[in-house]
Amino acid sequence: MIMDRIRREDLKSKIKTADEASMFIKDGMTIATSGFTPSGYPKAVPLALAKRAEGGEKLNITVITGASVGDELDGALSRAGVMTRRYPYQTNKASRNAINEGKIMYQDMHLSHAVQFMNYGFLGKIDVALVEALAITEEGGIIPTTSVGISPQAIENADVVIVEINTSQPMGLEGMHDIYITENPPNRKPIPILNTGDRIGTPYMPCDPEKIVAIVECDIKDKVRPLGPIDEDSKKISGHIIEFLEHEVKMGRLPKNLLPLQSGVGSVANAVLGGLLDSKFENLTCYTEVIQDSMFDLIDAGKVIVASGTSLTPSEEGLKRLYANIDHYAKHCILRPMEISNNPEVARRLGVIAMNTAIEFDIYGHVNSTNIMGSRIMNGIGGSGDFTRNAYLSMFTTVSTAKGGDISSIVPFVSHVDHTEHDVEVVVTEQGLADLRNTSPTERAKKIIDNCAHPDYRPILKDYFQRAMKGKFKHEPHIMDEALSMHARFMEKGTMKIK
Amino acid sequence: MIMDRIRREDLKSKIKTADEASMFIKDGMTIATSGFTPSGYPKAVPLALAKRAEGGEKLNITVITGASVGDELDGALSRAGVMTRRYPYQTNKASRNAINEGKIMYQDMHLSHAVQFMNYGFLGKIDVALVEALAITEEGGIIPTTSVGISPQAIENADVVIVEINTSQPMGLEGMHDIYITENPPNRKPIPILNTGDRIGTPYMPCDPEKIVAIVECDIKDKVRPLGPIDEDSKKISGHIIEFLEHEVKMGRLPKNLLPLQSGVGSVANAVLGGLLDSKFENLTCYTEVIQDSMFDLIDAGKVIVASGTSLTPSEEGLKRLYANIDHYAKHCILRPMEISNNPEVARRLGVIAMNTAIEFDIYGHVNSTNIMGSRIMNGIGGSGDFTRNAYLSMFTTVSTAKGGDISSIVPFVSHVDHTEHDVEVVVTEQGLADLRNTSPTERAKKIIDNCAHPDYRPILKDYFQRAMKGKFKHEPHIMDEALSMHARFMEKGTMKIK
Ligand SMILES: CC(C)(COP(=O)(O)OP(=O)(O)OC[C@H]1O[C@@H](n2cnc3c(N)ncnc32)[C@H](O)[C@@H]1OP(=O)(O)O)[C@@H](O)C(=O)NCCC(=O)NCCS
Ligand SMILES: CC(C)(COP(=O)(O)OP(=O)(O)OC[C@H]1O[C@@H](n2cnc3c(N)ncnc32)[C@H](O)[C@@H]1OP(=O)(O)O)[C@@H](O)C(=O)NCCC(=O)NCCS
Repeated sequence: MIMDRIRREDLKSKIKTADEASMFIKDGMTIATSGFTPSGYPKAVPLALAKRAEGGEKLNITVITGASVGDELDGALSRAGVMTRRYPYQTNKASRNAINEGKIMYQDMHLSHAVQFMNYGFLGKIDVALVEALAITEEGGIIPTTSVGISPQAIENADVVIVEINTSQPMGLEGMHDIYITENPPNRKPIPILNTGDRIGTPYMPCDPEKIVAIVECDIKDKVRPLGPIDEDSKKISGHIIEFLEHEVKMGRLPKNLLPLQSGVGSVANAVLGGLLDSKFENLTCYTEVIQDSMFDLIDAGKVIVASGTSLTPSEEGLKRLYANIDHYAKHCILRPMEISNNPEVARRLGVIAMNTAIEFDIYGHVNSTNIMGSRIMNGIGGSGDFTRNAYLSMFTTVSTAKGGDISSIVPFVSHVDHTEHDVEVVVTEQGLADLRNTSPTERAKKIIDNCAHPDYRPILKDYFQRAMKGKFKHEPHIMDEALSMHARFMEKGTMKIK
Repeated sequence: MIMDRIRREDLKSKIKTADEASMFIKDGMTIATSGFTPSGYPKAVPLALAKRAEGGEKLNITVITGASVGDELDGALSRAGVMTRRYPYQTNKASRNAINEGKIMYQDMHLSHAVQFMNYGFLGKIDVALVEALAITEEGGIIPTTSVGISPQAIENADVVIVEINTSQPMGLEGMHDIYITENPPNRKPIPILNTGDRIGTPYMPCDPEKIVAIVECDIKDKVRPLGPIDEDSKKISGHIIEFLEHEVKMGRLPKNLLPLQSGVGSVANAVLGGLLDSKFENLTCYTEVIQDSMFDLIDAGKVIVASGTSLTPSEEGLKRLYANIDHYAKHCILRPMEISNNPEVARRLGVIAMNTAIEFDIYGHVNSTNIMGSRIMNGIGGSGDFTRNAYLSMFTTVSTAKGGDISSIVPFVSHVDHTEHDVEVVVTEQGLADLRNTSPTERAKKIIDNCAHPDYRPILKDYFQRAMKGKFKHEPHIMDEALSMHARFMEKGTMKIK
């Protein structure tokens, strides 16, 4: 099997077991891996590495990925205590816990920064690139699997390269990728993408064959995350957004087929896209990171003509569907390096409509995407800032309450700011939508409380705002020793409600 | 005088007095004006407008500018109560006070957003463009004066155009401007700037002559802001930055002549640039917004070969120097529309080194640039986010204390977030510099407290951090009901110190 996938003769001698290959990774090293929002990540070598640590070997490794990766990498290495430093994004339970316990030093970075900081040398020396591949071409080019992420630059920057050829990934993926690598300033050129579907690169990642020290066979499947069923709240959020977009088209502020959509990860995000299926929009395009299940529905229905991303992350069922009809989907999907999928230049030129999920937002429009009650990391900012900051129009969605109603997702002052009032144009909950364009902070507060907050919390928020307005400074009025009091109350009493 | 400056015959009949011209501006209108960090703004017509209001006429006007404008516009209209809505940036005492009193609805916007939001129709209908000009060409092109700002797009979007020809502005400025206008998505193209000095447009702003309803003569000079003398703290900050940049060059992370510098406004920013005069750096370029006095020194010394910005804002003395030798400086300076000077695409491609001033930053690296004690607007975010977010390397500077030592500019949690931990790589005070690359939040806290905080406040900050670390969640540990307590203490007791 694996022999067919190594099309360059001289590389066949590099085949090794995962245990052997893992020996190229030594204590203190930095490894950069494939993988994005858990798909296309290496599996066999990280498991071998974890086994070594469990056998008593001292191993402290810095791991840089595209975005989140599966349990065989983040989970196994966290549990084994191997991974002591981690950039730029994760969603794994074990790694999240270790970060929150102070055992992993985690820098939560914009994904579009991670790649260029590696290129600039800001992340230190990259000892090993560890990438999952579909196959290796005659020229030594490496064909990615279900995601591209940082792989092209990991290969370029690393001293040595370990390739995991995953034979569970169907060869039908070949040709879906479009690899384009930018130069560093002062030699950087314009990225020649003018339309979502433009192909500007090669279907494989260039690699000096001398750098490849091991090729490992692997047949472990991507552990994709199951998507929850689409619930009532998500449907309402999706409905508010579609109504808003229709209004924007009517007012002449958006073309009939909208502009390229970017949609965040998770169930709400999936539902929002899903809602487009019953809308009257047609000939849509998506310039986004991850291609989830609802995208296949939209492609099948002829609603979406092209989807550009850096990873395919369907559910298990979606994956079956993809693989059963891969040639069909391949015509409509492009997988790009995350430096291109998340590039500010391209996002701004194309004019993406960014739709991401918030943990909480405040009455003035600041958004928290990352830290619960200020201190506890959930996942990370991921690409949300890359798109939000460079969008034509940026929206955030969240359900108005959490933890069975004991938490209001609308607060006076968010406990962590990831997106500022300057970056957010629309916020939406199941209660309704607030259009924040052309508003002063105080006008925003009224809209957000009235349209988005849960009725249980409106009086508390109104009371705060009205008392803050009695202060001397009325631009963005706050009461410093009360701004975070809803969070403090939850931590003390288990509810933000006043009993 | 003015006749020589109107090179197109049929426009000479449009000459009107400021009072007459002001009559095109009616209650409820939105006007978009020239002017950037107060230079090149219209003066005569706003004064006439204020006079009308003082005479009892009811006038509520929305004013959109490039950035800050002088007292004849922001000051006069605020005092007269004419300006009831204002975007995207201001620095005038009267407008700031009116905003803080809740009399002006102010939306503090990224400058790079202001232009495109106007183009997208997000800011509503633009009734009148009011622009200061040097002259009008035979084709009807309008030549800007000391700034470009939003003028090209104001002219393009407005129903009618009023031109103030300012005869105090020397004709030597002609040719310094480079006007390039982008299209809206989905038709937007790459901006063809590959090097700081590239000229890609015309030396005038295109304008349909039919749209010009009035041409007014004016000879009031720009009211530029005086720069304070360079103090010891600013010199120390500048010294830390230069040492850091030298180190980065040595490590191979920056070219010998660095990358295009962007430098914020104000005295510290001026001092930082000034410090380069005694450094060994050569062949520098600047891709920035404002060209201040220290830039002329650097050009004269042959240190800076090209400076690109959207406005010339020298002090009164600097202005004399500029005008005495304008042909010399014109060879080295380019004035662009703010859509181009502040463009994320260009900033990222060129790899600017962004250096901006903070009001305060916190132990985890979040920066407040806009609101004092959370509620009170100072100026606004201006272009700092445009550059910070798209820079090769972004730095923030501030003196470690304010108000005679009663305020620490380093706090546990900033009272307003304009730039997040994800966006800031280096912070600097007179005490020292903290390099935040490759750090988890807790590592950052240690560096920032040790290197940047004033010794008087280090124990208070350390105590907060250590107690926060005792909590359950150690990623970015905070104590919700104490995070803003230094601010609360200052507001209650007039000092952040514990007595
Ligand atoms: C914000 C984000 C965590 C929401 O994800 P989701 O799957 O839609 O959210 P959920 O409703 O499952 O909430 C996740 C957790 O946060 C909790 N939560 C939600 N809102 C909360 C709030 N206001 N306060 C405290 N906790 C909250 C939930 O209870 C849940 O906790 P649990 O895991 O203990 O049950 C996720 O979208 C994210 O990581 N975003 C940042 C990165 C990003 O935007 N990437 C996309 C760019 S393309
Ligand atoms: C942040 C900014 C206000 C600093 O300007 P500056 O002229 O260097 O600052 P100053 O030291 O004069 O401080 C301005 C005021 O803030 C006060 N201040 C400074 N630090 C403070 C702090 N930590 N807490 C409270 N007040 C503080 C000062 O006391 C002063 O108040 P005063 O006017 O009542 O005397 C200014 O750089 C700015 O507006 N930045 C945002 C926009 C921007 O970055 N534009 C450039 C992009 S190209």
